[in-house]
Amino acid sequence: MEKILITGISGFVGGHFVDFMNKNHNNFEIYGISRNKPAWDFVSNPEFHGFYKADIKNLQKIKSIIEDLQPNFILHLAAQSSVAESWNCPVDSFMNNTNVFLNIIDTVRLINTKTRILSVGSSEQYGIVDENDLPLLEDMPLRPENPYAVARVSQENLARIYAKGYGLDICCTRSFNHCGPGQKDKFVVSSIVKQFVQIAKGIQEPVLHIGNGAIIRDFVDVHDVVEVYHLLLTRGRRGEVYNVCSGIGRSIIEIITLLSDMYDINVEVRQEVSQIRPIDNPRIVGSNKKIYNDIGWKPKISFEQSLRSIFNYWECQIPKNM
Amino acid sequence: MEKILITGISGFVGGHFVDFMNKNHNNFEIYGISRNKPAWDFVSNPEFHGFYKADIKNLQKIKSIIEDLQPNFILHLAAQSSVAESWNCPVDSFMNNTNVFLNIIDTVRLINTKTRILSVGSSEQYGIVDENDLPLLEDMPLRPENPYAVARVSQENLARIYAKGYGLDICCTRSFNHCGPGQKDKFVVSSIVKQFVQIAKGIQEPVLHIGNGAIIRDFVDVHDVVEVYHLLLTRGRRGEVYNVCSGIGRSIIEIITLLSDMYDINVEVRQEVSQIRPIDNPRIVGSNKKIYNDIGWKPKISFEQSLRSIFNYWECQIPKNM
Repeated sequence: MEKILITGISGFVGGHFVDFMNKNHNNFEIYGISRNKPAWDFVSNPEFHGFYKADIKNLQKIKSIIEDLQPNFILHLAAQSSVAESWNCPVDSFMNNTNVFLNIIDTVRLINTKTRILSVGSSEQYGIVDENDLPLLEDMPLRPENPYAVARVSQENLARIYAKGYGLDICCTRSFNHCGPGQKDKFVVSSIVKQFVQIAKGIQEPVLHIGNGAIIRDFVDVHDVVEVYHLLLTRGRRGEVYNVCSGIGRSIIEIITLLSDMYDINVEVRQEVSQIRPIDNPRIVGSNKKIYNDIGWKPKISFEQSLRSIFNYWECQIPKNM
Repeated sequence: MEKILITGISGFVGGHFVDFMNKNHNNFEIYGISRNKPAWDFVSNPEFHGFYKADIKNLQKIKSIIEDLQPNFILHLAAQSSVAESWNCPVDSFMNNTNVFLNIIDTVRLINTKTRILSVGSSEQYGIVDENDLPLLEDMPLRPENPYAVARVSQENLARIYAKGYGLDICCTRSFNHCGPGQKDKFVVSSIVKQFVQIAKGIQEPVLHIGNGAIIRDFVDVHDVVEVYHLLLTRGRRGEVYNVCSGIGRSIIEIITLLSDMYDINVEVRQEVSQIRPIDNPRIVGSNKKIYNDIGWKPKISFEQSLRSIFNYWECQIPKNM
């Protein structure tokens, strides 16, 4: 059976990917690496074959794992993916995005396995763009505007050189904002929905605390994301970069209004200066034309459906009276 | 007196910079860091105040040096600047270019000194360009095509974010190929001139071993380079990127013909497959219009003059009968 090694298995997308494979594709052996054990029950998951507790910054460690396992596929999810955290700790962000990826691809180069790698990148790579340049296409110039984005551009440049110069079988994404049940509340949609649940349960005043409410982002449900990662791993064109996005831009304020209407909850919105970043992209909206043309994928889950599943998730997580 | 800290002081450019300051600007205290002690006599140099033997990959070490010294200027020359070596050891190249630079700028950010930093980058950042796009202007898109170039683009992106997001006083160069006396013979002009000297002295058959003879590069004499680095340190616009180049492209074969004529030596040229790289830029020629407009600099030393000084250098280095 073919083996998939997932880096950052313990994260939000890692858990959903294993679930998805379990339900839809049981013809792979799945292995995972992470610094922390997954919160979800990976032992009883029939698709899940082995967990390595390791920090990928440790080159010797990742080398011995890949050499030992000889995976057919590597899904590289390990990342420090918060823009806000990257402003606070830019060196950590760079090391945990770019350097860990370099460790993986250089290991595959040196071991000379035929491993196919999916390098997950970010829409933040595009940087601040003119409204007329939306939706973003893959061949547009990249102007990263925060430490996280710089790290992701470096990662993609390395992927391109390793594919072109050393013949590695790498395919890249620029993944736009994710949402879905289980995402940490340091990410915007999760934070907002959690606050709505807390307000609904009467454990928070009807005041919503957010950063910059005017920024526009393109959100994809994590269930759609894991589906396309499987497709790209098996069918994405080698050396290519694909936007993983919905093609629809929504401002943070619009999302709040939508939730207000869906759950009939009125809130007062407070923009916290402490949550506003040194430089912020006013709008990021992608085109998913290339990925649709190449592998026939587009998102299936509506944004309202996503919000409902996140609302249900937080309803289960948060007791009525804390 | 104002203090300049030079990283990579032991290298080719470092030695020439200290010489230049000694002769022309004795109103600075000069300090240097390097993994290796300089080959030149730094102790007796009146401008040279202190040498730190340290690897900048060691964040704690560089932190304690900068904290202790509180330099007014940092001239960041430390680099692994060989494209060929970057193909052999891409991880080393990345760490010794991007990560060391990140250590320096993050230290300056955390210590919050008013240090002005000159980040030296490379023309390799442009990548493979269409002939119609020559000469290269600073606002052209960057498409790095080797591991060294990727590391340099990452460095410049980090510099830009630290300048824009954290307010650091950084100015960047994209420096084109250097030549001059004292450069190692792993660099193309130095290697060719050294072989001419060996042929002239009768210790090498009249056969010249080179890589790809058709590639076109833009060479600047190291004496011009150190002059402009001093100007940029003191007068370059904050947050800006400047080409440091001659504006003239020469193929390797043209250089060989020029040397043949200058010294009346006929040679047979042999292109060694082992020296040809996985991906190579056919032509790199820059425009020095921006730097001329901003700080009034253009190179003074003719290419023939450079070749003569390199020839003299190798003549002194190589005994008549080895």
